[in-house]
Amino acid sequence: MIPFKEAYDKVLSYSMNLGVEKVNLMNSSGRILAEDIKADRDFPPFNRVTKDGIAISYAALANGVTKFRMEGIASAGMPQQCLKDENACLEVMTGAVLPLKTDTVIMYEHLTIEDEWVVINKAVTQGQNIHYQGSDTSQGTVILKKGHVIGPAEIGVMASVGADKINVQALPRVCTISTGDELVNVNETPEPHQIRKSNSITLQVALSKLGIVASALHLKDDKTTIRKGLENALQENDVLLLSGGVSMGKFDFIPEVMDVLGVEKVFHRVAQRPGKPFWFGFHEDHNTAIFSFPGNPVSTFANYHIYFLPWLKTSWNVPIQNTFVRLVEELQINLPLTRFIQVRTRWKDGALHATPVSENGSGDLTSLVKSDGFICLEPRKAIYKVGELVIFVPTR
Amino acid sequence: MIPFKEAYDKVLSYSMNLGVEKVNLMNSSGRILAEDIKADRDFPPFNRVTKDGIAISYAALANGVTKFRMEGIASAGMPQQCLKDENACLEVMTGAVLPLKTDTVIMYEHLTIEDEWVVINKAVTQGQNIHYQGSDTSQGTVILKKGHVIGPAEIGVMASVGADKINVQALPRVCTISTGDELVNVNETPEPHQIRKSNSITLQVALSKLGIVASALHLKDDKTTIRKGLENALQENDVLLLSGGVSMGKFDFIPEVMDVLGVEKVFHRVAQRPGKPFWFGFHEDHNTAIFSFPGNPVSTFANYHIYFLPWLKTSWNVPIQNTFVRLVEELQINLPLTRFIQVRTRWKDGALHATPVSENGSGDLTSLVKSDGFICLEPRKAIYKVGELVIFVPTR
Repeated sequence: MIPFKEAYDKVLSYSMNLGVEKVNLMNSSGRILAEDIKADRDFPPFNRVTKDGIAISYAALANGVTKFRMEGIASAGMPQQCLKDENACLEVMTGAVLPLKTDTVIMYEHLTIEDEWVVINKAVTQGQNIHYQGSDTSQGTVILKKGHVIGPAEIGVMASVGADKINVQALPRVCTISTGDELVNVNETPEPHQIRKSNSITLQVALSKLGIVASALHLKDDKTTIRKGLENALQENDVLLLSGGVSMGKFDFIPEVMDVLGVEKVFHRVAQRPGKPFWFGFHEDHNTAIFSFPGNPVSTFANYHIYFLPWLKTSWNVPIQNTFVRLVEELQINLPLTRFIQVRTRWKDGALHATPVSENGSGDLTSLVKSDGFICLEPRKAIYKVGELVIFVPTR
Repeated sequence: MIPFKEAYDKVLSYSMNLGVEKVNLMNSSGRILAEDIKADRDFPPFNRVTKDGIAISYAALANGVTKFRMEGIASAGMPQQCLKDENACLEVMTGAVLPLKTDTVIMYEHLTIEDEWVVINKAVTQGQNIHYQGSDTSQGTVILKKGHVIGPAEIGVMASVGADKINVQALPRVCTISTGDELVNVNETPEPHQIRKSNSITLQVALSKLGIVASALHLKDDKTTIRKGLENALQENDVLLLSGGVSMGKFDFIPEVMDVLGVEKVFHRVAQRPGKPFWFGFHEDHNTAIFSFPGNPVSTFANYHIYFLPWLKTSWNVPIQNTFVRLVEELQINLPLTRFIQVRTRWKDGALHATPVSENGSGDLTSLVKSDGFICLEPRKAIYKVGELVIFVPTR
């Protein structure tokens, strides 16, 4: 049994380069950008009119012109127009290219228009209502850096610069593996001594939130079956996520079979609760990381968030940032185990406040739906006080 | 022009019942549960062994038995076994049904085993290491309520009770509509006076995060085209999200065409910045809500989060909860407009702290990738102070 911090650091030290893949921009939400994106032109790409109204040469106004004849119109999508008579004006629409020989835009609300003649009713500042070419970003500037998490806003920006195919961090090939003869499928009616599969389903759905379509494998408690199944899975995946099969029981063959298959056991058992019988290994030849979680739902869910997600972020070179919450109840941690306690969080005074969710041991699946994550508490003599800030592992 | 609060309340008053649909459990992540889910059996469904070791009758120990003969084994997935000799024991594995005539489990770590004889090396409490039938949840109990947001944990729970098809709130049929002759597609090279479409793409991706696959329509600035396009779109959708076409320009036909098509204009123009020229309408016969956002990217992105998402939550009967952040800089709001200021947020002392993102007017798309959301500030004489809590509209 090793301390939690050591287990955590060991897992992260086995992060791997997952490579880069090119995807369509529209399919890149949630992915990690793996290249710098540059502006392919100035933004705005031209001096852009920002109000509907007229464009004039400010000099005309300064020289005493009070009535401007409308020469024509410039709307968005039209090539750049040109003011012919410097004492006249052009009607302009938002998004239009500012016409040549004009430098100032006045909006309709400040105009009186009679036929083709315009009078300006409000003080005018030279250059107003124009979004100048390159004032946001000039051509060639990096507008999105490698490592940025892609969301709707990023996709909008990349659309603007024509980046319709982009390089992102590749997703790992993941297989979720359930073990245990007591498990039946969701659509089956279990016998009294059986239960339905849920761990591997929870993992599959959690992975799908990252865009990972994991394969699924169920192994019966039989050494030959497990050996064959694992051998294939090791070859075809970057990551195996197992649940069950790592405690000390007679039918828990996993650690033994892993050894036979050439998997290096990095550690087995961590001084934490829940999730103590966690087994972590690595197959050097296949470059496969094996997370073998305890079989109960809370342990599996906890360890997925505690170990696998940080491992993945590290593999993607995404920095890990701790979130903190304030305790609503005082807590005492006596046993020499790092505790992960399920909590419900609420906003109050700008901070997240965490209330422990009552649970009935780590086999209690229903507690997971009442909680928003786990707080991480190290054992210590002093009581954890109400209002104290503690590390939070969100699971929503 | 109406005040922001009035516009917001009006939009919410047009929320609609979107109905319910049945989906496969595995496809329900992110959806809103539209039925109560009950436990189909007790959880655990039997007295479940929680440690690998032996099961005994505590009475034997109390009566002075010190060496227990192993009669056999009970592992997970086996029907319930029965202890024949009350002074003997059965080897048991985690997840097994507790054998009949036993009531206490002792783990391997506290045993000395020689051949088939077992000696217990540690004090034993009657009933230990058993997860009792129904102790988490008894059959028929509601374990997930209507209105719950579904995530991996909820799907795991529903898998456990065999709910492989479930009722969820239906998604609205949404069409995103872009207008403007200046727009070209992402994979095209724009002429100097043209720009690429980005608003409708940003909206499509934002909607996809909710599971909504929106249709997309681009309308040229031509009254007949716009009329035909909108007429179809009104019939086939619950929601239209438009960008561009609602300012005062000559080619901004939308409000006029909406009127002709029988759309009730609920309001046009809101005392807010950005997003002022927002137009909202409703078609009673088709039961369609029309959000017509200003054409610039920041306004569209802001108003999508400020109006559309709360409208959708209200339609789904999901409560709207405000998030608050603390200001890092002091701010003064003088103009009589509700301000939405882009901010970057950071955790500090358990609270989210917000720093305004420098931006160059509402046409500045690149500012959106630097920000995590908008803070909402009402105009007032007093300065907004450093550390003050203000409403936050997250966009990530």
